[in-house]
Amino acid sequence: MSDFNFADELIIANRMADAARQAIDPFFRSNLTIENKFRTGFDPVTAADRASETAMRAILDACRPDDGIVGEEFGTKPAQNDRQWVLDPIDGTRAFIAGLPSWAVLIALSVAAKPVLGVIDQPHTAERFVGGPDGTVYIRGKTRRQLSTRKSQSLETATMMTTDAELFTRTERGTFNMIRDRVRLCRYGFDAYAYAMLAMGGIDLVIESGLQIYDVQALIPVVEGAGGVITDWRGGACCGGGQVVASAHPDLHAQVLATLESAAA
Amino acid sequence: MSDFNFADELIIANRMADAARQAIDPFFRSNLTIENKFRTGFDPVTAADRASETAMRAILDACRPDDGIVGEEFGTKPAQNDRQWVLDPIDGTRAFIAGLPSWAVLIALSVAAKPVLGVIDQPHTAERFVGGPDGTVYIRGKTRRQLSTRKSQSLETATMMTTDAELFTRTERGTFNMIRDRVRLCRYGFDAYAYAMLAMGGIDLVIESGLQIYDVQALIPVVEGAGGVITDWRGGACCGGGQVVASAHPDLHAQVLATLESAAA
Repeated sequence: MSDFNFADELIIANRMADAARQAIDPFFRSNLTIENKFRTGFDPVTAADRASETAMRAILDACRPDDGIVGEEFGTKPAQNDRQWVLDPIDGTRAFIAGLPSWAVLIALSVAAKPVLGVIDQPHTAERFVGGPDGTVYIRGKTRRQLSTRKSQSLETATMMTTDAELFTRTERGTFNMIRDRVRLCRYGFDAYAYAMLAMGGIDLVIESGLQIYDVQALIPVVEGAGGVITDWRGGACCGGGQVVASAHPDLHAQVLATLESAAA
Repeated sequence: MSDFNFADELIIANRMADAARQAIDPFFRSNLTIENKFRTGFDPVTAADRASETAMRAILDACRPDDGIVGEEFGTKPAQNDRQWVLDPIDGTRAFIAGLPSWAVLIALSVAAKPVLGVIDQPHTAERFVGGPDGTVYIRGKTRRQLSTRKSQSLETATMMTTDAELFTRTERGTFNMIRDRVRLCRYGFDAYAYAMLAMGGIDLVIESGLQIYDVQALIPVVEGAGGVITDWRGGACCGGGQVVASAHPDLHAQVLATLESAAA
């Protein structure tokens, strides 16, 4: 692995997240205003997506010109080294369109194909969750707090989340329902914010499928930095997306995997 | 109907919402801190619920001693007139426990059994939605904006929300699924905040059942003040709770009722 100074990269990542907030701000809920200032056919989420990713790429182009970039909107820039930034300018576009503050900006840095820094940023609530080798931190205004997952050891007392159970295939749905019938509580919605709540100790389990590389990479350091576990449904690495399960505790994770494996791709 | 000056009651309602914010603040996410300062068995949502309702009742006792009160935590205080305040100190306790900022404080004033003032307040995002005879207003810091629902006229282009489809009975669920299969998009979670998003023009439809009087009364002036429609599944008044459907536009509401009536209680 090449030299990697977390503090230096964190400065870059925070600048990117700040720039994305500023770029997106004019567009969030702009479609909901009574007097629409934009021409017919204007799509605020596409405009916001592009403005956000453009702002983040400009910082990388200036400060990390040799690093690779994978972004949802503008594709892949090959790396001249073993470092790659993975950007989702707006995760949860359907929530964004609906005006719900549960979307997020996702930023990840991988070194030698391993995600080492992850940012989940919610601009409307001004909340940022940053994961890395020193753990996971919650930042909001002057608040700064080290996060830790719950010590959940059993499915029966767990709170589970998934964004939308309709997104599962029929087989996946059957398996998901078996777990849902065992947990104490299941909540829906929230996209990447659900993983932030797992890192914060609010919930115990997130189960999803069909994730893209830019949906998942930022989540990994945030979940792992807080003491959680995040893998694919077989227990392997989930850096590439697909079927993803995150747990607050390794014991809980083992119980969930035992059921999920039957529907693992 | 007795004398009712909206501006005067709004001052009271805003003071109550401010007091609830302050009362709840120490408890939100307090169960998620690493070092739990509270004794084992401490239930932050119960403590927050009680603190919130106590703070709101204190203002009513001082300023509106003859008005009736119905609150989720402390029951009913009979009215000496035809006015009743209906309080849900924390709507969405399951979201509250999970750390999700989609719960709300609900305040309603009914005069002669008709809800004339409604407040949906989300303390963490500092967002307040206030409905009354002059319309519905969004307040956040220095932002103050008149709200208007979308001019949605067809199910096929609608975005629908419900908090949790598992809360429906089997018959209700079947009917809900028929509508879900027709709309463009369905999102889950968010409790009362979903109705605020309908008032704001973000979504078109909310369908729920099993609501209590304190879950629903504040929603009515917020939805109606923004141009929406909110009734029970037969199209009648929903002031008492139960099966509730809210639509952004009367035409859309008529289409939804045509399907919902088969499962109406």
